Amino acid sequence: MNFNNLPIGLFDSGVGGLTVMREVARLLPNEDLVYLGDTARVPYGTRSPEAIRKYTLEATAFLLKEKIKLLIVACHTACSHSLEILQERCPVPVIGVVRSGFEKLMLKAHGKRVAILGTTSTIGSGLYQNLILQQYPLTEVFPVACPLFVPLIEEGLLDHPATKLIAEHYLHVLRNKHIDAALLACTHYPLIRPIIQQAIGPEVTLIEPAEAAAREALNYLTAAKLLRPKKQPHLQFYATDDPEKFSRMAKLFFGSEVKKVHIANLFKGD
Amino acid sequence: MNFNNLPIGLFDSGVGGLTVMREVARLLPNEDLVYLGDTARVPYGTRSPEAIRKYTLEATAFLLKEKIKLLIVACHTACSHSLEILQERCPVPVIGVVRSGFEKLMLKAHGKRVAILGTTSTIGSGLYQNLILQQYPLTEVFPVACPLFVPLIEEGLLDHPATKLIAEHYLHVLRNKHIDAALLACTHYPLIRPIIQQAIGPEVTLIEPAEAAAREALNYLTAAKLLRPKKQPHLQFYATDDPEKFSRMAKLFFGSEVKKVHIANLFKGD
Repeated sequence: MNFNNLPIGLFDSGVGGLTVMREVARLLPNEDLVYLGDTARVPYGTRSPEAIRKYTLEATAFLLKEKIKLLIVACHTACSHSLEILQERCPVPVIGVVRSGFEKLMLKAHGKRVAILGTTSTIGSGLYQNLILQQYPLTEVFPVACPLFVPLIEEGLLDHPATKLIAEHYLHVLRNKHIDAALLACTHYPLIRPIIQQAIGPEVTLIEPAEAAAREALNYLTAAKLLRPKKQPHLQFYATDDPEKFSRMAKLFFGSEVKKVHIANLFKGD
Repeated sequence: MNFNNLPIGLFDSGVGGLTVMREVARLLPNEDLVYLGDTARVPYGTRSPEAIRKYTLEATAFLLKEKIKLLIVACHTACSHSLEILQERCPVPVIGVVRSGFEKLMLKAHGKRVAILGTTSTIGSGLYQNLILQQYPLTEVFPVACPLFVPLIEEGLLDHPATKLIAEHYLHVLRNKHIDAALLACTHYPLIRPIIQQAIGPEVTLIEPAEAAAREALNYLTAAKLLRPKKQPHLQFYATDDPEKFSRMAKLFFGSEVKKVHIANLFKGD
């Protein structure tokens, strides 16, 4: 069996991970990709850690049946609670947006003063905070939960005055804190990057983990000699509920239309 | 067995139905009540009709094991998709906030020009629109989906300028439409009633179905001679995920603290 021709699997709680898939498709244009959005149980950001771990393992089991050569966990909330258990149990290599984002952040911030913006659960897990303080104990970390960003973005209010007010509401605590860099630790947030930049201040470098995760995938596949030869790629999309809605929203997040979305039943594993 | 002493069951996708439970506790102060919030799968408002029906039947099965004498479906989205199937299959009487709200609305509006404000799924189901046009074919109905109200309310932004802008964003289409009455067809919305009133115009009567549903329960139990004798009531709370969060949010929706929240596992039915 030629492993090079196997697809890369990507998993997110909903459609947000499509911003990561877009970067992967851009950097690895020959690869087959299979994306699973657990739209039946989105958002993970407000679930308990136990529920998130269970859902992540179910999603991984589904993608492993597709015989993937690499798994990208394109969901910060899932990574925050499940990356270790996945890296232990998953028979293929796992790349998580959390670790990719972390490395890019610390490079840009020179280990000084950083902010983490994410869902309630990502921030509450403390994973980023712990990762940073373990390796850079002198860094000052400012974590901010921004739970309304996702629903505002999914409503398409990317440039609405209400979104600006909400960004101010969450981020004004960071003004005059002399932050060097801030991590957009949720796959949705790049879509309102200009509003976040305005609210946090123009001097703060914003970091998007999607590109970093895609680059990590490229580096791994190159080193492992697992790149797919130049061919037309096949992109597959699965959602656990409401494929029509997934299809409609995909344009916003993936940048191009996604017509065929299959239903995935994680419970039966088919 | 004395049926009078059995509890009333209430079900919602999350904590919003506690606004209905509060009204039931006020009008029926001797009754034992058991509340189930399916917090593991909230919000229903963005799920498919099939998923909502499945979840509603699972929740009902759980409450029936508690030996209830009456079921109140305190979730508009669940009602919109499942009330008929429930009324067919459920061995105890079922009261749904949808029908209670509808009756109160038509009474106040004298069957003329009405608005329905709800989640994407409640509005998309067309249930209210159909109910009204079947019985009052000359009524003009203006349905408006307001999906951001729930997350804004759950963030506690009950009086925030962003919530006002979002209310304007959704409701400005109703200005100058000469609406007589508008139904708050989501259990959360009463918490931002003043903002909704301001955005929709002071001349529009706002209808909350919670009180109507509680009155329907009182009427049914009185007629069926199923009222519980005067006793200290026992209130029980179940959530399918994160009972601590349920407990924290309950104060906002139920009006008083809820300390003990049990975990309900709908899948195993225990």
